[in-house]
Amino acid sequence: MISILPVEGLPEVTSGDNLAELIAGAITLQPYDVLVVTQKVVSKAEGRVVPLDPADPEARQRLVRHESVRVLREREELTIAETRHGFVCANAGVDQSNVKSGQATLLPTNADRSARRIRDALHARTGLQLGVIISDTFGRAWRNGLTDVAIGCAGIAALVDLRGTEDALGRKLTSTEVCIADEIAAAAELVKGKAAGIPVVVVRGLQSAWFRESSVRREVVRPHHLDLFR
Amino acid sequence: MISILPVEGLPEVTSGDNLAELIAGAITLQPYDVLVVTQKVVSKAEGRVVPLDPADPEARQRLVRHESVRVLREREELTIAETRHGFVCANAGVDQSNVKSGQATLLPTNADRSARRIRDALHARTGLQLGVIISDTFGRAWRNGLTDVAIGCAGIAALVDLRGTEDALGRKLTSTEVCIADEIAAAAELVKGKAAGIPVVVVRGLQSAWFRESSVRREVVRPHHLDLFR
Repeated sequence: MISILPVEGLPEVTSGDNLAELIAGAITLQPYDVLVVTQKVVSKAEGRVVPLDPADPEARQRLVRHESVRVLREREELTIAETRHGFVCANAGVDQSNVKSGQATLLPTNADRSARRIRDALHARTGLQLGVIISDTFGRAWRNGLTDVAIGCAGIAALVDLRGTEDALGRKLTSTEVCIADEIAAAAELVKGKAAGIPVVVVRGLQSAWFRESSVRREVVRPHHLDLFR
Repeated sequence: MISILPVEGLPEVTSGDNLAELIAGAITLQPYDVLVVTQKVVSKAEGRVVPLDPADPEARQRLVRHESVRVLREREELTIAETRHGFVCANAGVDQSNVKSGQATLLPTNADRSARRIRDALHARTGLQLGVIISDTFGRAWRNGLTDVAIGCAGIAALVDLRGTEDALGRKLTSTEVCIADEIAAAAELVKGKAAGIPVVVVRGLQSAWFRESSVRREVVRPHHLDLFR
């Protein structure tokens, strides 16, 4: 059984806050817990907040361009862009929700590193083997609706490679690399909600074999030369 | 808190099996449970299994073409195709894993209907308000690794529209339609595993407000004229 638990009672996060300390104060962790931390509070804690006049669409557009290395599609107010990290998402991660009016958050510079810092600090406090995933809400090609995905991780595999293992009928599976980091982020979103103010969730009961060093950027971001849709 | 529980002890499913009966015999359901049922067992129960010579790549290719309305990309053994249902996935859902050698499964003709039948039968037995999601394992653009998504649903919303609600700072959210059906399918996959032979999972503890009539085809499949990547 897997349990998904909201971490309640966290204060409003601002620049310079120590997220690991806030989390450790709010919940008693167990071995092999995975903490799923919303990008928004990581960006705030890391000071990735910039002024942005909500009445000036061109200022927003300039900021989106600055955060992009490539624009894939544009339609009215929506820009689908590739970020420096290799993520393809709306407005290159520039986000004006859940910040004060006149501000926007940018994606963390390196969300794998953000995850590692939180994991290391929690490990130092508790001695437990833990995983941390930084999640964000992305759209997808071909399907309506947003889902939460992992933009950074530490201590928990991003991909689990089941290639070469056998299925239930003893046939070799040829290609089944599952992105458990995205599935964990999606699961966490179900208790988080967009507006509920629950920025951290614990996912408990995952297989201990999945806990290892990892990186969303190395494992999940598909390199250009292997990508059929960029 | 949300719990994700494997339904253990189900027999190997074959054509004509009554999935609702098998599920009801294997687990005690509670109000607002969502059953996530793997496409593979739905296809088997519905007889969507066809002979396919594993030594004949052209036979496989013909079958993939037959299941496709449009081919988006082709590279060596991989065809990314759009199915009759509007799903974009590898090999139009033709799948040779977890079936006997010499066979392949096709996607259910109408997975929303498959979900509805199971939900109706479980509701008739238990009187409980329940949701059913039929899940399959799809690749994505831009990101490595597969994740489970919903290809059919009944009784539980596919999309939850948070547009117009307020975020934690009182700002209006402009566009946050979350595809909870895909997030629930992804969460279920974490206890299912590819090779573990757990074709049905219960997700317990979801918001009761999310339980309503629904359809993956109507809500999640993005119409062509709104799709920037087809």
